[in-house]
Amino acid sequence: MTKAYSFAIVGATGAVGEKMVQILEGSELPVKQIKLLSSSRSAGSKVMFRGEEIVVEEATANSFVDIDIALFSAGGDISRKLIPKAVEHGAICIDNTSAFRMDENVPLVVPEVNEADLFHHQGIIANPNCSTIQMVAALEPLNKAFGLKRVVVSTYQAVSGAGAAAVDELMEQTTSLLNNEEVTANILPVKSGTKHHQIAFNCIPQIDQFHENGFTLEELKMMNETKKIMHLPNLPIAATCVRLPIVTGHSESVYIELEQDGATVKAIQDLLREAAGVTLQDDPSKQFYPMPVKCVNQNDVFVGRIRQDADIATGFHLWIVSDNLLKGAAWNSVQIAESLVRLEIV
Amino acid sequence: MTKAYSFAIVGATGAVGEKMVQILEGSELPVKQIKLLSSSRSAGSKVMFRGEEIVVEEATANSFVDIDIALFSAGGDISRKLIPKAVEHGAICIDNTSAFRMDENVPLVVPEVNEADLFHHQGIIANPNCSTIQMVAALEPLNKAFGLKRVVVSTYQAVSGAGAAAVDELMEQTTSLLNNEEVTANILPVKSGTKHHQIAFNCIPQIDQFHENGFTLEELKMMNETKKIMHLPNLPIAATCVRLPIVTGHSESVYIELEQDGATVKAIQDLLREAAGVTLQDDPSKQFYPMPVKCVNQNDVFVGRIRQDADIATGFHLWIVSDNLLKGAAWNSVQIAESLVRLEIV
Repeated sequence: MTKAYSFAIVGATGAVGEKMVQILEGSELPVKQIKLLSSSRSAGSKVMFRGEEIVVEEATANSFVDIDIALFSAGGDISRKLIPKAVEHGAICIDNTSAFRMDENVPLVVPEVNEADLFHHQGIIANPNCSTIQMVAALEPLNKAFGLKRVVVSTYQAVSGAGAAAVDELMEQTTSLLNNEEVTANILPVKSGTKHHQIAFNCIPQIDQFHENGFTLEELKMMNETKKIMHLPNLPIAATCVRLPIVTGHSESVYIELEQDGATVKAIQDLLREAAGVTLQDDPSKQFYPMPVKCVNQNDVFVGRIRQDADIATGFHLWIVSDNLLKGAAWNSVQIAESLVRLEIV
Repeated sequence: MTKAYSFAIVGATGAVGEKMVQILEGSELPVKQIKLLSSSRSAGSKVMFRGEEIVVEEATANSFVDIDIALFSAGGDISRKLIPKAVEHGAICIDNTSAFRMDENVPLVVPEVNEADLFHHQGIIANPNCSTIQMVAALEPLNKAFGLKRVVVSTYQAVSGAGAAAVDELMEQTTSLLNNEEVTANILPVKSGTKHHQIAFNCIPQIDQFHENGFTLEELKMMNETKKIMHLPNLPIAATCVRLPIVTGHSESVYIELEQDGATVKAIQDLLREAAGVTLQDDPSKQFYPMPVKCVNQNDVFVGRIRQDADIATGFHLWIVSDNLLKGAAWNSVQIAESLVRLEIV
């Protein structure tokens, strides 16, 4: 008989947590038991899972007895507080927040890129930032074939990455503007910030707070996490992260330079066509390229607009799009759980 | 007595043409006479100018008798057809289309950057592409001080750059989506293209048609025009141009490398604070940076988010925003006319 596992999902009523439940429900993972956990505020609500009604419980330090795998997506504070307790109870925790990502004892994993890092876990595995995941999934096949020498990325990020309240804000502001009414801003760019800016029919060049070096924490996450996931600690990489009036689907304009000579657009297309988790959408003659509205509810990372730089022979430009709630969050977390089961790590 | 000049505006009823009329009306240019010209379809409509009612006339080869300065913004075909006739009649033509921009006998001018090129005109002066103008206005002070070695730019462009019909399309699609209705697309990304894509709550990584090298014509315009305006024919430069659901205001994420060592964020801020036509908006501690909705109806180019690259000491990142209908089009054209008058070229 196949071994079955007990799962917990912390933050089960949030935007990403709901997707985790859906994906787990549709996956082939042998689920013995599932515990849906949330704040006390959302506890008591009911969710259907494989034909059974599950009552959402409040997440506490004692929620993790007999849990094999716990998926966390309820904010960094909750992860910092509850993950050590869950680990004490023997659960392997897959954390979708930034709380443990740069901890050297915590593998930061995109299965298509560095699945083997899972073997070194000490109870916690971190799920990378949404904008990082889709980029490294597309760049790793090129890194393997030609070596990666330099990355400059500018992002075009959807509001659902900032949570359901940010989506509501975009919709409310848009409705107000169409009715010639005043716009109010309370959430974006950073809910706890001192200033909030209109997102409807605008773009905001700030995601997360500023570091003293002028980069935002989102930009630093992309830069530092990419180095860790790809095992390229000295990779020169720079990011500019921008929030757009788009509901779901992050896009990235990525410039790379490769170590080795000889790469061509066709060679890169061929590599990406075969790459796990990547779908090539690159035919200018048919105006075919990835776009946010076309990637929603799909697990893959979509790549197009591949061009050789006009001046630097080893330089290439790519346009990378993915559903930030799926590959950028819930799907990558469940993929990690699938890897743990398949590799018999759990 | 000050000399006064006769002006013609071709495309006077279009999005940019209307702005040209407004700016000319408010300028200190000595206007003896103004002729507003359009297609036969829009001829007959009436426009107020400095207290006088002007009837819009159909633009023909004979419209330019006794005109000193003619501003063209009615599409490349009209420019190619009528500008040679206007020049024959002795008018200096300032063309906002791409028809003559790369002609070696035609100065391509952003007054803050290369005003002196106006002295070499042979009847035609070209107004650069909107996304090019705002970038070179911000980069020229840095080029003068430190030399410019490399540019990689990703754009965030508003729909008004594609004309009034594109703005209507964005609004109609947005309304449809808020009402859970089907969306139709007929204009963007390229009206004459075989495919049209939804722009509402989306972004489209295509502006203008594709060249066989995989870049779009908009991207090639930015690359080639920048080299010409800045007199840097060998500058390595690459652009990725993306259309966003924003009405007005183009933004650009620009990475540059400088020739000389020693530049700092503060030195660059100081240069841009003093630069003509540029407003520095760069204070992360106050979440102060340029945004499209804040630049509308302002002539300046706004620059912020200035950061030194984490790996390359001569590398810097900038966020550049401007009203694409003003500095990107109408205002730069009228500025060229002002330069012609002030330098006594006309």
